[in-house]
Amino acid sequence: MSSVTRIVGIDPGLRRTGWGVIDTVGNSLRFVASGSVTSDGDDDLARRLVAIHDGLDAVLHEYRPDEAAVEQTFVNKDAGATLKLGQARGIALLVPARRGLPVAEYAPNAVKKAIVGAGHAEKQQIRLMVTVLMPKATFNSDDAADALAIAVTHAHHRNSPGARLARQIG
Amino acid sequence: MSSVTRIVGIDPGLRRTGWGVIDTVGNSLRFVASGSVTSDGDDDLARRLVAIHDGLDAVLHEYRPDEAAVEQTFVNKDAGATLKLGQARGIALLVPARRGLPVAEYAPNAVKKAIVGAGHAEKQQIRLMVTVLMPKATFNSDDAADALAIAVTHAHHRNSPGARLARQIG
Repeated sequence: MSSVTRIVGIDPGLRRTGWGVIDTVGNSLRFVASGSVTSDGDDDLARRLVAIHDGLDAVLHEYRPDEAAVEQTFVNKDAGATLKLGQARGIALLVPARRGLPVAEYAPNAVKKAIVGAGHAEKQQIRLMVTVLMPKATFNSDDAADALAIAVTHAHHRNSPGARLARQIG
Repeated sequence: MSSVTRIVGIDPGLRRTGWGVIDTVGNSLRFVASGSVTSDGDDDLARRLVAIHDGLDAVLHEYRPDEAAVEQTFVNKDAGATLKLGQARGIALLVPARRGLPVAEYAPNAVKKAIVGAGHAEKQQIRLMVTVLMPKATFNSDDAADALAIAVTHAHHRNSPGARLARQIG
């Protein structure tokens, strides 16, 4: 008898936050659902954050994952963009934590390495590998595919000693 | 008959988030309360954000402000620090917005100008002026004093055409 652990992966962004839910059963992965939560760019910032919060919370309410994994935002040189991403990421971490889920964080390179086997994979390779790993996976956006890749990364790492390390970063 | 508007000012930070509540009655300001919400640096990031969320939400529940004003985070050259601040700031904007409050944002220079009359005031001058404007004001930290200054700034700006402009920034 092997138990099922349901994982939600989240790829945070102010305009679009991707999410992907998978089940791990022993060593196999099963696609459950994916999608993205969007906010209206014409709305003010506080209301956009509420939209992301409420959308993500509805996903967790519907799919009841056991654990969450969030992508560590790429920190680029544009401080304004980093701040915006930070605000969306704060919500992406808050929502599962408020529901009592353990929240792991993975750097983009760790995700690429777990999925493709190399730290510098292209977006296309990641999408392809997500489909190879879970033939039934469907996603309608890059954010949703990335979120699934984050969930798969967590499935690979969650029982390894490295997982604890990954959770420390950030 | 003049109506009372209660304002909460918030100075976001991952370690300490300052808050200050004031009442505006016509042209006069009345100190209500101030303080800060802290998170444990040994805790993981998601749980720290939950601590800030729950602490701020308890303040809003207790004092029932009508409007909120949040400091626009200073964007410095350290991208990691900017990201951290962004995450705390996302929570500071989310909490009042989820309670249906309008949330205004003010740049640090706008706060200094509203309080001291110059855009480059020192922290000490701000604390002094908050006390001059509201002799009964008490605060036990710089964050709480800053939060009160943000609330005072909003009291000055909220009915001016400039307020709408300030709300657009960020």
